[in-house]
Amino acid sequence: MGETLKLGLLGLGTVGSGVPLILKEHQEKISQVTGMNISISKALVRDTKEKQTLANDYDFSLTTNYEELIQDEEIQIIVELIGKIEPARSYIIRALESGKHVVTANKDLLAQHGNELVEVARKNHCDLYYEASVAGGIPILRTIANSLAADNIHKVLGIINGTTNYMLTKMVSDQLTYEEALDQAQALGFAESDPTNDVDGIDAAYKMVILTQFAFGMNVSIKDIETSGIRGLALEDISMAQQLGYTLKLIGSSEVKEDSVSVEVAPVMVPNNHPLAAVRDEMNAVFVSSSGVGESMYYGPGAGAKPTATSVVSDIITIAKNIRLKTTGRLFNSYKSQTKLTKDEDIYSKYYFSIDVPDKPGQFLKLTQIVTESGVSFDQLIQQQSDGKRARIIVITHEMTKAQSKKVVEVISNVEEFKLLATYKVLE
Amino acid sequence: MGETLKLGLLGLGTVGSGVPLILKEHQEKISQVTGMNISISKALVRDTKEKQTLANDYDFSLTTNYEELIQDEEIQIIVELIGKIEPARSYIIRALESGKHVVTANKDLLAQHGNELVEVARKNHCDLYYEASVAGGIPILRTIANSLAADNIHKVLGIINGTTNYMLTKMVSDQLTYEEALDQAQALGFAESDPTNDVDGIDAAYKMVILTQFAFGMNVSIKDIETSGIRGLALEDISMAQQLGYTLKLIGSSEVKEDSVSVEVAPVMVPNNHPLAAVRDEMNAVFVSSSGVGESMYYGPGAGAKPTATSVVSDIITIAKNIRLKTTGRLFNSYKSQTKLTKDEDIYSKYYFSIDVPDKPGQFLKLTQIVTESGVSFDQLIQQQSDGKRARIIVITHEMTKAQSKKVVEVISNVEEFKLLATYKVLE
Repeated sequence: MGETLKLGLLGLGTVGSGVPLILKEHQEKISQVTGMNISISKALVRDTKEKQTLANDYDFSLTTNYEELIQDEEIQIIVELIGKIEPARSYIIRALESGKHVVTANKDLLAQHGNELVEVARKNHCDLYYEASVAGGIPILRTIANSLAADNIHKVLGIINGTTNYMLTKMVSDQLTYEEALDQAQALGFAESDPTNDVDGIDAAYKMVILTQFAFGMNVSIKDIETSGIRGLALEDISMAQQLGYTLKLIGSSEVKEDSVSVEVAPVMVPNNHPLAAVRDEMNAVFVSSSGVGESMYYGPGAGAKPTATSVVSDIITIAKNIRLKTTGRLFNSYKSQTKLTKDEDIYSKYYFSIDVPDKPGQFLKLTQIVTESGVSFDQLIQQQSDGKRARIIVITHEMTKAQSKKVVEVISNVEEFKLLATYKVLE
Repeated sequence: MGETLKLGLLGLGTVGSGVPLILKEHQEKISQVTGMNISISKALVRDTKEKQTLANDYDFSLTTNYEELIQDEEIQIIVELIGKIEPARSYIIRALESGKHVVTANKDLLAQHGNELVEVARKNHCDLYYEASVAGGIPILRTIANSLAADNIHKVLGIINGTTNYMLTKMVSDQLTYEEALDQAQALGFAESDPTNDVDGIDAAYKMVILTQFAFGMNVSIKDIETSGIRGLALEDISMAQQLGYTLKLIGSSEVKEDSVSVEVAPVMVPNNHPLAAVRDEMNAVFVSSSGVGESMYYGPGAGAKPTATSVVSDIITIAKNIRLKTTGRLFNSYKSQTKLTKDEDIYSKYYFSIDVPDKPGQFLKLTQIVTESGVSFDQLIQQQSDGKRARIIVITHEMTKAQSKKVVEVISNVEEFKLLATYKVLE
């Protein structure tokens, strides 16, 4: 175990401070597997005083000046864990251009500037790994890149936001309202004080950009992803889903049809016998449908200091092995395909509509007529208990196109007395 | 795409005939990822006439003489899919000694002669991969070797036999008896006419030998694994498990405690909120508990021509990349640790006992006394409906050691009027 591999760490927040911990706890196994000692040499922080104890505990130095890490020729890998776009983007580019390999967990950055960074890494013959950017502790990117290389994937469905999955689980199990579930998630530290990125599905959409690159070799941008979150989701719809044998989950989906892809983030009714329905609390899972393997699912924690740091360290180990074998500079994902988006007319699904109607005769008929006129046929039609003034009608349709579903939404919204409360895809 | 990588295939049975299919179906992606064309050059079969159509369809030749494959210098990889010990073992050794890399799906062979084969591969600087030997389409070995290299695993729990999981699922969902479920599994081709290896847990035990090597770097042999299967499992116990909020599953478990390991295959009561409880039909799953990631699970088909062949082809792709990068000859699993078995006194679990007793006063008391005398305390004690002559008592204990459980079994068995019907571990 002569050789030592030195790291420069950017950021000592939750995940950042997990990295020295994991490196130390699993030191023996890591040395055995890589044949190297891996240690942090220096960390970039905003306030050196605040982090001095941590730095002393794990025997590395601190700096507020990034150039110190770049100039240190002993540092071979930069681990970026400060998040957001800038200065993370510039730091990573600077590192790669200085011939240093990079590990990052930054999904926002990868989703928005991934191509640029991958290109800079390629040009400089450096490694760039980012396993932890999607589904924290689940090694899903590596699995798709390595093990499913022999396979043709046609669909990826992910529960890839722990905060919203925790909230939905509590709404089901404890009959909490959306607001109560959000309060609880915030109290436990799962949700931030501004929960927008989680509850509106933005965080999940970033991850879907990356998953789509790995699964289909296609580059979609965040604006190509129709994204709706769980904000204001009604407990009534959660309960209705349960009654019908489904569990409502916030699902990121990416699906190819011939040579095009459709990517979406939205609440979806998942049948209770589907393995995604059993993914509870803050856990994540990615379900893959492919022509060779068939159905497979990868389940684990999507966030948290230790799981994410473990994933970061697995990337560091990969680079360490590449350094030893002199095989650095290869792409994390080498699968590339022409990017083309599927038209709404070619995307099929069953749908659930929840509609508030006046509690008077003829409403069922009226609704039936307008839906039928859109060329859509029903699978189930349920009238819920009413308060005498307004009633709630639930419609589950047979398969129809996304274009048709948008038409139905438009038509129902145009009926003055009707109020469309919710529209969800129904997974079969 | 100039370079072509040629394979020699041993056996054209179910999985064997899946390999040319997968190579052809996913040809484009495989070429892109490896930068090579991969094709089968020749296959070894018992009867060339029988397989001639298949060989013509996929453009490879047939032989009944293994030496033809060995002498063919263009063949760089031998894919062994004939199964069992001999001649598979000799064929693989001959291939490795001739400088050819090997891919196999042979769990029996790996579990019994893995060390020998790995050593021959190492000596000859050849690759030896066997991802498909455990849990067919699930890339669990590669995940443990690569992604969990940064982690310390403490427990692996696997539903790794599709036949028995299918049978148990049907016993729960359709209230089938053991015999009816076996008939159905045989009719569907999931179970062989002699189902011993599946129903008695032997197949699962072989896979646990391999999983234990990867997870803990330890070499246990099949005789170190206490193995009990599902043969003759009573529908009453399945139903009782359901009533108590558990699902009975055949679980292979491997757990470290300090520096020792205990490996077992047995029916286990899995709580319904545990992700393994939702693994239905012929699907497999491996649940991993580790200090870094925490809990993760890998789910997919455990058998079948296409999933297994896809897994075999992912190994072929790995070797193809190694050949290009000139990095062949490394071990699939490089993690090694001193093998030591945990004593029964140090293995803790809750237990479920199902006991047939005479339906007369004082039985509950008698049972309570003898169990308490063994130093065991109860969590639940349930008397089921009786027929007036015999009654069934269910005991769920608090945590106790395996040594204690064996003592309880012995004591109960010694009471002439009692009949111990079932003993299962209860997972928490």
